[in-house]
Amino acid sequence: MLATETKIRVRFGETDKMSFVYYGNYALYYEQARTEMMRQLDFPYSEMEKRGTIMPVLEMHTQYIKPSYYDDLITVKTFLREMPTARIRFDYEIYNEEQILLNKGYTILTFANAETFKPVRPPKYFLNLIAPYFEK
Amino acid sequence: MLATETKIRVRFGETDKMSFVYYGNYALYYEQARTEMMRQLDFPYSEMEKRGTIMPVLEMHTQYIKPSYYDDLITVKTFLREMPTARIRFDYEIYNEEQILLNKGYTILTFANAETFKPVRPPKYFLNLIAPYFEK
Amino acid sequence: MLATETKIRVRFGETDKMSFVYYGNYALYYEQARTEMMRQLDFPYSEMEKRGTIMPVLEMHTQYIKPSYYDDLITVKTFLREMPTARIRFDYEIYNEEQILLNKGYTILTFANAETFKPVRPPKYFLNLIAPYFEK
Amino acid sequence: MLATETKIRVRFGETDKMSFVYYGNYALYYEQARTEMMRQLDFPYSEMEKRGTIMPVLEMHTQYIKPSYYDDLITVKTFLREMPTARIRFDYEIYNEEQILLNKGYTILTFANAETFKPVRPPKYFLNLIAPYFEK
Repeated sequence: MLATETKIRVRFGETDKMSFVYYGNYALYYEQARTEMMRQLDFPYSEMEKRGTIMPVLEMHTQYIKPSYYDDLITVKTFLREMPTARIRFDYEIYNEEQILLNKGYTILTFANAETFKPVRPPKYFLNLIAPYFEK
Repeated sequence: MLATETKIRVRFGETDKMSFVYYGNYALYYEQARTEMMRQLDFPYSEMEKRGTIMPVLEMHTQYIKPSYYDDLITVKTFLREMPTARIRFDYEIYNEEQILLNKGYTILTFANAETFKPVRPPKYFLNLIAPYFEK
Repeated sequence: MLATETKIRVRFGETDKMSFVYYGNYALYYEQARTEMMRQLDFPYSEMEKRGTIMPVLEMHTQYIKPSYYDDLITVKTFLREMPTARIRFDYEIYNEEQILLNKGYTILTFANAETFKPVRPPKYFLNLIAPYFEK
Repeated sequence: MLATETKIRVRFGETDKMSFVYYGNYALYYEQARTEMMRQLDFPYSEMEKRGTIMPVLEMHTQYIKPSYYDDLITVKTFLREMPTARIRFDYEIYNEEQILLNKGYTILTFANAETFKPVRPPKYFLNLIAPYFEK
């Protein structure tokens, strides 16, 4: 398994009139967190794009357990629990500074050619970077 | 069952560099669609708020089937398939102008006191408005 | 002069914890309004893009006079007061349902090649569509 | 004068189909940057809110000089060039990692009572924190 943590400061513009982070904005936090996971693997998503592979999102699920508030410094824990196949699933848990679980969810993405948008296999160099985390 | 349709024009700012609508922005479309469902019931959500009840989102699920593009005039079909209890579930299907299904998902919301944020039962006047759609 | 009106319903997700529309979201309303102006000219911006010209924004100015609230049905009045040169300026005024002026601003855009991003002159067919509004 | 710097990583969801950061999203960067300036003064905006004063935005101006791209690590330089009166003006300059100026702008905000939204003077404790930067 691969697990990383990303700290994000909640912006004013990400809240709504209920005073909480708007439910649609967690998708931005998830995106930032999986991007940082890839950067920590030394393979930023922007680099994957440049090499011709993109990762469109196929599915998202989110559970809103407790609100996040403006200026909270939240921690997004990101988990890659299985080797990617045609799909790759990231799991997320978001905690506030008191280590209270606020939100959990997952996203399932796929791999596609950046020009044609046709499905492709996950890039080998990417799998090679991940493989060590899944050896027993 | 209660079913309504809402037409939404995709904004430029709702797309991302993949040229598609950003995956997080469907939450806005879902929100607009369920708001319009409530308005068609003659009970806008803003009215429910004024009467002291809010509806925080507990859960969201989204499947991204085909991309939506800038300037697409999409139709969000919204379904209320069961009478609300402590929770209310809305289902959504998004179609483009060629009637192709682009996206489907659901949100589960609850009812809370607008001041205290404590859980409350769904307002009676709201249930009364919905009830006729669930009679056999 | 060319003037058009666009009605927009304020979404919940466009507000912030101050209960107002977040100041950054007016850019979306301006964008939607100038898009609708172009559509009313029978030349949607998406069509201009397909023909190879894009219009990046160079400058924006906004004055926040009174707040817009969730579920307000606002009217964006859009004005094209001068024939475009290398630049095109749109002016905006936003009113609520009581005809109170909430916001005013302008954006200055330019014309560029959709592939190379290099500056180009405004497309002739676009100028031809606009010209009648500026004849004396 | 008071000057601070804030680093921000551009999110995928902040870009649009032109591949650049959407012009409306700079407002979020400005907001984050002035929040961080206040935090560096040891007086976060969230603290000012708790003490009963809010700072609505009255005016914004932005110049888009060069695009910001996905995953850019941009630096927002924020300047407070004059002591606040009934209004406070922040100036911003955004640079990429090659120190190229991408964007500049300013926002003018005012001070209001958090409950009544009525105008108030800038809080004394806030002025006291700033004053040393404006002594000759």
